[in-house]
Amino acid sequence: MDFVITIDSQADTPLHRQIYEEIRLKILLGRLTPGQKLPSTRSLAQSLNISRATVTQSYEQLLSEGYLETTVGSGTFVCHQLPDDLLNAAPIKPNSSAANSAIKLSAYGESLNDKAFLRLPELELEINFTYGRPAFDRFPIDLWRKLLSRHCHLDSAVLDYTNDSMGYQPLRQAIACYLSRSRAVKCTPEQIIIIGGSQQGLDLITRVLIDRGDSIAVEEPGYLGARRAFLAQGACLFPVSVDQSGLEVSKLTTTSNIKLIYVTPSHQFPTGAVLSLSRRLRLLTWAQQSGAMIIEDDYDSEYRYSDRPIPALQGLDQGNSVIYIGTFSKVLFPALRLGYLVLPHNLVHVFTRAKWLADRQCSLLEQHALTDFINEGHLERHIRQMRSLYNQRRQVLVQSLISQLGDRVQILGENAGMHLMIKINTHLSDEVIVQSAAQLGVGIGAAHPYYLKNSSGSEFVLGYAELNEQQIQEGVRRLAQVILDA
Amino acid sequence: MDFVITIDSQADTPLHRQIYEEIRLKILLGRLTPGQKLPSTRSLAQSLNISRATVTQSYEQLLSEGYLETTVGSGTFVCHQLPDDLLNAAPIKPNSSAANSAIKLSAYGESLNDKAFLRLPELELEINFTYGRPAFDRFPIDLWRKLLSRHCHLDSAVLDYTNDSMGYQPLRQAIACYLSRSRAVKCTPEQIIIIGGSQQGLDLITRVLIDRGDSIAVEEPGYLGARRAFLAQGACLFPVSVDQSGLEVSKLTTTSNIKLIYVTPSHQFPTGAVLSLSRRLRLLTWAQQSGAMIIEDDYDSEYRYSDRPIPALQGLDQGNSVIYIGTFSKVLFPALRLGYLVLPHNLVHVFTRAKWLADRQCSLLEQHALTDFINEGHLERHIRQMRSLYNQRRQVLVQSLISQLGDRVQILGENAGMHLMIKINTHLSDEVIVQSAAQLGVGIGAAHPYYLKNSSGSEFVLGYAELNEQQIQEGVRRLAQVILDA
Repeated sequence: MDFVITIDSQADTPLHRQIYEEIRLKILLGRLTPGQKLPSTRSLAQSLNISRATVTQSYEQLLSEGYLETTVGSGTFVCHQLPDDLLNAAPIKPNSSAANSAIKLSAYGESLNDKAFLRLPELELEINFTYGRPAFDRFPIDLWRKLLSRHCHLDSAVLDYTNDSMGYQPLRQAIACYLSRSRAVKCTPEQIIIIGGSQQGLDLITRVLIDRGDSIAVEEPGYLGARRAFLAQGACLFPVSVDQSGLEVSKLTTTSNIKLIYVTPSHQFPTGAVLSLSRRLRLLTWAQQSGAMIIEDDYDSEYRYSDRPIPALQGLDQGNSVIYIGTFSKVLFPALRLGYLVLPHNLVHVFTRAKWLADRQCSLLEQHALTDFINEGHLERHIRQMRSLYNQRRQVLVQSLISQLGDRVQILGENAGMHLMIKINTHLSDEVIVQSAAQLGVGIGAAHPYYLKNSSGSEFVLGYAELNEQQIQEGVRRLAQVILDA
Repeated sequence: MDFVITIDSQADTPLHRQIYEEIRLKILLGRLTPGQKLPSTRSLAQSLNISRATVTQSYEQLLSEGYLETTVGSGTFVCHQLPDDLLNAAPIKPNSSAANSAIKLSAYGESLNDKAFLRLPELELEINFTYGRPAFDRFPIDLWRKLLSRHCHLDSAVLDYTNDSMGYQPLRQAIACYLSRSRAVKCTPEQIIIIGGSQQGLDLITRVLIDRGDSIAVEEPGYLGARRAFLAQGACLFPVSVDQSGLEVSKLTTTSNIKLIYVTPSHQFPTGAVLSLSRRLRLLTWAQQSGAMIIEDDYDSEYRYSDRPIPALQGLDQGNSVIYIGTFSKVLFPALRLGYLVLPHNLVHVFTRAKWLADRQCSLLEQHALTDFINEGHLERHIRQMRSLYNQRRQVLVQSLISQLGDRVQILGENAGMHLMIKINTHLSDEVIVQSAAQLGVGIGAAHPYYLKNSSGSEFVLGYAELNEQQIQEGVRRLAQVILDA
């Protein structure tokens, strides 16, 4: 009988476990076959030069798990209850990817294989204008730590499942007050659902309202995260162009069978345009007439450097046409996955269930800390400080661009947000500019991926929130070198 | 001209803001019509007995936002650019739900309106055997606070977006080691995706693999959270009965066109059966032959009080047939929304994208704290302590049931987990038992909602993890009162 067991007395794994593992593997490999007799514990212990108790422990484990069986007076055998065909059907095929190599994905799963989903790998660049990050080095992290610590105790309110999936009620209350004060959003806490960031909001809205083949109007150019969510769920996208007053609402018709329109009215992404009041009103009327819902993504409305912000669409709406998405990723820090939906009353119930099915609830500890952060005035203080900081950084960026590039650059968008868009007068391709800048340690993003149709090119998005004034000036200097040396 | 403005000098809102709001509202209400002249700042200031600068500030705000326009030498007017038809089309209808009252939901959204989704409201009961909660009063919360504090600093690794959506790499590494040690799961960190609890795992799997109309096999009885996710996405459920050795695998045929099978092999929910090794092997063979994927939900495998747990299906699999779901909700505390998927290599890419679209990433701070919690040995220490505690509590429950109810009660399931199922010999209906127990301050759940088809009734699920011995004994005493007094 071929019965060789190798053990390693130096290994971390206990000996009885090593023996157990090896015998189990032999059975599964078919090297020990059902009914085959095993050596006695005594003889195996002798051959391995270890205690019999160790071998007995291994055998008992294998017996309890059904790999072995004993017959009184005869000894220990590989269990007959493991049918031959099973063992034969499952030979060890290490790293085999033959089986199931062609797992059939759902239509949703297939759409994720689309090459259009690809993001460029983010390079480690010295000065990175790539949009997305706030100045989180200015975030009052010590305060945040204190707030987390304050709530981190054995209180079931912080550790338990919540009663419902809408989120922590006092946080919803705090957000309702904040939105009313700062954004003229009209809502009660019962219309708010706490979500894991704005992307989850886009995902839930699409799932609850859109079937494959339904039409969604999107801004052209527009935010990729939204477009990806819409496309993955099989929506047909209907691009509506954007000018200096935001979405060209007049291009929407009531006969186009659009179920949903996605807009960033406070600060259009990426152009930076602000949707004018008259267009806001016209958009709301269009939605009521056509029966479409509006998604208002207010991702960086906190940062407006000239006038007071125009009231949110949600606050202007007279019907139930607007779903408002807000997030704390841009205001606090991205790794805090908390945002919120403000829903018409008649959609709260179905969205609460959709949130339950998606992930039951958001992390409670962070919801408690955020509630205090808002109620104790830290949120609005932090926003004021960041507004002043980003305004300075924006001015430095604008001045640098003008002084370095002169009439070769056109600055688009309004005086707001954490990024601006520029159009460069150049014969260089977007790719050449991006790559040449990267070689000088400067990261910038071309705007053409934000277009569904072909763009005219030479447009770039510059995020400035996380860069200090020296970095901005130096970054623009190097960018100008790329443009002007060509 | 009807032009009455009311201000409140005691209010928190600044006067200029009050004036601004009131005029804006009048315009939106149509009480001020396009072209209508406003009083001069001087006359309005006089009539309100406030400074002219305050009124000027309000007017300037309204001018900048496009509500008003000025004509040199003539005065200030309601803007003509607000078309009449817009204003007429959007009269203020406070709380109007007429518009869009019949928002058309997607098929997914409609399925959430299904009454079968309803959960009973959770009553505040003195002794609650309702399943779900761990003994989180024993969780080392001070240690958790320290770990959170340790990582709560201005380090972009904790505050930033992650590079990818798979989750924090050292956490994935720690989980891979832990799973190998404790569950015989074979995986590398590159096969693990961090998710927001097991419900998100179920949701992502269904989305990526299942189209409406596809078939999913489920345990009968089985876990509701999984069934709800499957049904909402339009799957056809194919119930497979469970006996004392778990799922009756022989009832699966290779011709049934099943794309996915959902199992809880370590401790079947709710019956408590453990899937035998021979059935595990047969299930894996069936999956390879039929091309179906297996979801192995290992929700409470940490708690087994007799033998060493049988190795996970994932570790026995020779192909790429198993997706393993684990969660920290039951081991640590429910409000910590962290779990993980262990995926076959060929599905990692598409699931990473699905996670990005769903919510980009999980909270990073908690991922960092959890990494240390695992790597410093706290996880396994806590599990050992809870295993001993839950084992005691289970024994007390079993002994109480036997001594109080004798042969009127049958205890089902193996010596494991955080709950057990009982069958009571009684003529009382499930509803009467649940309600009578509730009147005595005792919460128990009937098992019939876990069945897709009709159940024989008189089965109940008793969670014991969060109840101390006195509560368990007293709870069973009152339950016996309900049964025996009838």
